[in-house]
Amino acid sequence: MKNHVYKLIELTGTSTTSIEEAVAIALQRAHRTIKNLCWFQVVETRGDITKGKVNHWQVTIKVGFTVES
Amino acid sequence: MKNHVYKLIELTGTSTTSIEEAVAIALQRAHRTIKNLCWFQVVETRGDITKGKVNHWQVTIKVGFTVES
Amino acid sequence: MKNHVYKLIELTGTSTTSIEEAVAIALQRAHRTIKNLCWFQVVETRGDITKGKVNHWQVTIKVGFTVES
Amino acid sequence: MKNHVYKLIELTGTSTTSIEEAVAIALQRAHRTIKNLCWFQVVETRGDITKGKVNHWQVTIKVGFTVES
Amino acid sequence: MKNHVYKLIELTGTSTTSIEEAVAIALQRAHRTIKNLCWFQVVETRGDITKGKVNHWQVTIKVGFTVES
Amino acid sequence: MKNHVYKLIELTGTSTTSIEEAVAIALQRAHRTIKNLCWFQVVETRGDITKGKVNHWQVTIKVGFTVES
Amino acid sequence: MKNHVYKLIELTGTSTTSIEEAVAIALQRAHRTIKNLCWFQVVETRGDITKGKVNHWQVTIKVGFTVES
Amino acid sequence: MKNHVYKLIELTGTSTTSIEEAVAIALQRAHRTIKNLCWFQVVETRGDITKGKVNHWQVTIKVGFTVES
Amino acid sequence: MKNHVYKLIELTGTSTTSIEEAVAIALQRAHRTIKNLCWFQVVETRGDITKGKVNHWQVTIKVGFTVES
Amino acid sequence: MKNHVYKLIELTGTSTTSIEEAVAIALQRAHRTIKNLCWFQVVETRGDITKGKVNHWQVTIKVGFTVES
Amino acid sequence: MKNHVYKLIELTGTSTTSIEEAVAIALQRAHRTIKNLCWFQVVETRGDITKGKVNHWQVTIKVGFTVES
Amino acid sequence: MKNHVYKLIELTGTSTTSIEEAVAIALQRAHRTIKNLCWFQVVETRGDITKGKVNHWQVTIKVGFTVES
Repeated sequence: MKNHVYKLIELTGTSTTSIEEAVAIALQRAHRTIKNLCWFQVVETRGDITKGKVNHWQVTIKVGFTVES
Repeated sequence: MKNHVYKLIELTGTSTTSIEEAVAIALQRAHRTIKNLCWFQVVETRGDITKGKVNHWQVTIKVGFTVES
Repeated sequence: MKNHVYKLIELTGTSTTSIEEAVAIALQRAHRTIKNLCWFQVVETRGDITKGKVNHWQVTIKVGFTVES
Repeated sequence: MKNHVYKLIELTGTSTTSIEEAVAIALQRAHRTIKNLCWFQVVETRGDITKGKVNHWQVTIKVGFTVES
Repeated sequence: MKNHVYKLIELTGTSTTSIEEAVAIALQRAHRTIKNLCWFQVVETRGDITKGKVNHWQVTIKVGFTVES
Repeated sequence: MKNHVYKLIELTGTSTTSIEEAVAIALQRAHRTIKNLCWFQVVETRGDITKGKVNHWQVTIKVGFTVES
Repeated sequence: MKNHVYKLIELTGTSTTSIEEAVAIALQRAHRTIKNLCWFQVVETRGDITKGKVNHWQVTIKVGFTVES
Repeated sequence: MKNHVYKLIELTGTSTTSIEEAVAIALQRAHRTIKNLCWFQVVETRGDITKGKVNHWQVTIKVGFTVES
Repeated sequence: MKNHVYKLIELTGTSTTSIEEAVAIALQRAHRTIKNLCWFQVVETRGDITKGKVNHWQVTIKVGFTVES
Repeated sequence: MKNHVYKLIELTGTSTTSIEEAVAIALQRAHRTIKNLCWFQVVETRGDITKGKVNHWQVTIKVGFTVES
Repeated sequence: MKNHVYKLIELTGTSTTSIEEAVAIALQRAHRTIKNLCWFQVVETRGDITKGKVNHWQVTIKVGFTVES
Repeated sequence: MKNHVYKLIELTGTSTTSIEEAVAIALQRAHRTIKNLCWFQVVETRGDITKGKVNHWQVTIKVGFTVES
């Protein structure tokens, strides 16, 4: 049974719509350069406000991916 | 005025769609055996990734329910 | 370059539908009396349950706004 | 079903006697200006000491109350 | 020397009087079905408020007990 | 793609030898009644001491397992 | 011996120079409307960056003051 | 205005009766060797159980005292 | 309105003088390879000691920057 | 005395045997591309389970290394 | 039933071999001057690295011991 | 390679001027009785206020020093 090593990076995705979309956008961007993304974990959920409404959801996630041996 | 006792259990619900659905699925399953669920609290929000997209949202909640006296 | 001061208040918004709506409802109410809301941060996500379903999402946020000098 | 908004404030009550009295004193004072207090949560329990005895219990609580719509 | 296994459960006891009584009530209820309770740890102290007074102290504890081998 | 529900329980395993053995002993005991254990997470590592030596390692873990639907 | 009640508010002061000045600016502003500020506690230290240099130090503090009885 | 230095030590007081008494007992003992105790902060509240009742409340506090210059 | 993605990295800057300089030195170094640094957050403040004096302040920060799309 | 800058990365090493080996495997892999690793800190210890036994220990660490100036 | 007082001290033990040995070394040293050590709790696990290998495991523990009355 | 043991103590230094000076004052005092201080870590930054200005910065640090073997 082989032992694996994973690296975790931290990203903030933003979306005008939802927490889920902010995460999707961060993953989509990371996937362009890192093909083997495995899992994520939500670290912080924030947002900026314009005229009393959420302008952007800003969701920070840790993303884990396998490091090739 | 009667004093109550509540028990808290920890569940992880998963959903391919949203955080809200993952919670709903966990509660729905718990409700099959525990009728008097009262409240929940989100403990952790994670997910696994397939091809750069969220495969399952994995939302861990604590659920409180009344213990019959 | 001017130095600003911000105040942070803590609110719990509730919604029968989603986390996002609970935040929107809290901000909408705060905006009625405070015009210069700038940002928020989700502090806690809870809910109450009726018959095994989420009755209200209860999302507590910290909201920051500029204090007029 | 109506959606509510709550505000949370942070208070420190003090008592020479007990943790419970320190909380009661903070709530009693808050109730003079805010009629619809709903719940509280103990955030920190400290105290100052005189001659090796607790002089004042200092209990910090978050108190939630409904914001009128 | 034998190795033991303990299980921890989370309970919320309530009392109109004190934190200590809320814990006692939770333990008393747990003892009805679990005879070998060993220790507890206070996790959270909250309460609900009626007319500016504490209505119920709500104390959440983790309780450990030996699992029979 | 099916949505799953997991339950998490908290156990303390003890061992006179090592952290790893304390976890193994807790899992071994849990496996006697719960067949589908999936993952664990170390929550706390403590121990009691006799004559300046570790008597028992006491390792508290959260263990997740699938709830049959 | 009289029992006191304190209120805590959360402020973010900013400064182009130092953490200490950011706190001073927040307190100075609060003092304009609240005369009996007693103590503060640093909650978070952040900043924004322009061309690789700190533009503003943003220091969030909790400030406690006596509530007149 | 003189600058002071304080030392903080951590103690666990126990009482069969209440959290307040457990703290008082810890302070009383510390006062026997350290005369200038200034403040304390509750760090953890635990207890051991005998026959479903709290046997000892075990309250861990940090105590600060002035270091003579 | 475009949705952005940010990456966060963690750096420790050191300075013999002050916390502020330690942060400045970390940012200055990061700016050599990453032009679009946006914000930072202090994570930990430590130091090493020589003959009872601070030798180096060691300040760990998270730094966020925009990921080009 | 020169001021240094360090970068911290987060890795998860896995091992079928022990926590120590999981850390060693993560460091060994990192060392292949980063020669000046200085220190690490254990962030989380988890594992997956097969038939009631630990399959892989999964230990997440933060690793610090000097950034060449 | 007598009420006890315990003191807690914080130690870092180091070992080139394992977490368990680092704890044992710290306890062994403390036992030379304090005979009634009762329990410990792991607070932090770190290490320094030489050529991509763990040089010393550095394990910080809190140790509790009875204060003679 | 020898294994070391370190002890950590907690001190609060105060200064009317800066966070850095408050730490320096605490270390300077500790150095009078403990010669081999090695490192420190900032635990909390607070202060008391007089007429809207910081009166004393109160910085709590953990300080580590080698225990002679």
